[in-house]
Amino acid sequence: MVEQRTGVGVLGLGLMGGSLLRRLAAAGFAAVGWDADPPTGSLAATAGLTVAPSLADLVSASSTVFVAVPLPALQDVFESVAAVAQGQLVVSDLSSVKQPVRALAGRHGFAFVGGHPMAGSAESGFAASDAGMLEGCRWVLTLDEETDLAAWLGVAATVTALGCQVVPTTSAEHDVAVARISHLPHLLAGVLVAAAGQDPLALSLAADSFRDATRVTATRPELVAQMCAANAGALAPEVAATVSRLVASGDALRQPDELVRLFAAAQAVRRAWPPKTPVEQWLPADGDLRQKLLGAGNAGGHVARVTRDGVLVRTPETA
Amino acid sequence: MVEQRTGVGVLGLGLMGGSLLRRLAAAGFAAVGWDADPPTGSLAATAGLTVAPSLADLVSASSTVFVAVPLPALQDVFESVAAVAQGQLVVSDLSSVKQPVRALAGRHGFAFVGGHPMAGSAESGFAASDAGMLEGCRWVLTLDEETDLAAWLGVAATVTALGCQVVPTTSAEHDVAVARISHLPHLLAGVLVAAAGQDPLALSLAADSFRDATRVTATRPELVAQMCAANAGALAPEVAATVSRLVASGDALRQPDELVRLFAAAQAVRRAWPPKTPVEQWLPADGDLRQKLLGAGNAGGHVARVTRDGVLVRTPETA
Repeated sequence: MVEQRTGVGVLGLGLMGGSLLRRLAAAGFAAVGWDADPPTGSLAATAGLTVAPSLADLVSASSTVFVAVPLPALQDVFESVAAVAQGQLVVSDLSSVKQPVRALAGRHGFAFVGGHPMAGSAESGFAASDAGMLEGCRWVLTLDEETDLAAWLGVAATVTALGCQVVPTTSAEHDVAVARISHLPHLLAGVLVAAAGQDPLALSLAADSFRDATRVTATRPELVAQMCAANAGALAPEVAATVSRLVASGDALRQPDELVRLFAAAQAVRRAWPPKTPVEQWLPADGDLRQKLLGAGNAGGHVARVTRDGVLVRTPETA
Repeated sequence: MVEQRTGVGVLGLGLMGGSLLRRLAAAGFAAVGWDADPPTGSLAATAGLTVAPSLADLVSASSTVFVAVPLPALQDVFESVAAVAQGQLVVSDLSSVKQPVRALAGRHGFAFVGGHPMAGSAESGFAASDAGMLEGCRWVLTLDEETDLAAWLGVAATVTALGCQVVPTTSAEHDVAVARISHLPHLLAGVLVAAAGQDPLALSLAADSFRDATRVTATRPELVAQMCAANAGALAPEVAATVSRLVASGDALRQPDELVRLFAAAQAVRRAWPPKTPVEQWLPADGDLRQKLLGAGNAGGHVARVTRDGVLVRTPETA
């Protein structure tokens, strides 16, 4: 089930791709990188990493290629990879939205497994890359109806071998989840800053709660806008639901009991976070595996290990 | 102008009052505390602080009394203080809203100067009190049309002697400012948690941006609800404005350029925060002082020192 083939390629050596290539190399994989920007490739080579002379060389040296380029570049890169791919190539990506990438990848001949490591930093570029950034992070791998399960397990084996926790879910469910926990915080931080932005008195009184609630504005505006716009389909309904909740909170200002209830409910959820995953379960490689993986991911669980015979999952409770 | 009279009283020895009494004592003030809860008073005495045997004893020993009780208790405490006050007593408070407190205090005979130290912690009670909590914090002292300027300067002299930065502003402007930078963050954290609260997948993927944006939910729900409800007059219009901004952000998801503009504007404001106050200005004690103080506070400045002859203010630019 787990294919032990030669190379793992990383296409694009910015913050995420650079960090992944470093971590693959450190874990003993035959890892090779390439970047469309030659100085970036030189930086990586100087850092002791193996860099292919061309995209075609990278693809021919790899059984799995992780594409780590910005969203707007994905279409061209997928086409370039497909044009030189031979035999059974598995392609994954590291983008923050999955439905739009799934639509792009489906047009090509390679086996595609959408990916999203839940890691990052406010910086960008290879110079900021760091193998430690991916340490123990959750890493979504999408398991859609058209996804090849063997390809999925192969990518999951690589990612778990890097010490990351693989979260199986569908592209659609991923996009709703990240709208809620990543894109919405950016939008809310934006409106919160706007409320105080023209008020020097307010800004001079602002302290920890303002600091924490707006820290995420440090991310590059172009990157955040791109991420949110690409996920507009899943994000727009979440914004609408949040508007309704905020209107309800405003109404509750005249009903202190209701207000206590709202804050207490939020506190209870937040105190139980991050969720613990105390239940270990071995899922044998049988006909039910796909559904069981999705059940584990959607219950808040993850895959900790992949072998030829099956998969070890950890969940909050028995899925 | 600065009255050097005997005692400074602190009425209520919870987190804030306890911290203030500790800091006053450490700064060499003849500071005396009292709490309606005898075990709390004993705790304070055991900590080496001077504790009065009764509220009446505290008031008679003090020229200035800081009232540090929860909002719902303020009315009774003001009445009890007024009933035993003799001569020129100045009363200040430490509550997070100022218009409602101003309305309560105005019914009594003492000179009132509303206060709000921008400091705190998620804990509560004397056991959590700490003189260091007030170190260098901004401390609003309200300067309303009915406020006695000499009383205001006296309280400001005490607060600046504790190493805090006094921000002069009106009760109404204070309440709008804290709605923007303190109460709104609580409401937004609540709706953000609610968006992910029923979604185990989302909670399992949540990382730093969710953590930071929701940290404030650790505060006691009853306290936050009380604070927000008491400031409903100023907070409700801010919630409405935020709803409009959030709707606009949702609309911008289909216009990436507009989205970039929104995030870039938020980033610019946040990067310039906290504001620097490089301009030092000496304001002599003349007829314009009240307006100049308000101008400095509303420009993002603060009072750093108070003497008989005037006041040293620090502002972002010449007010």
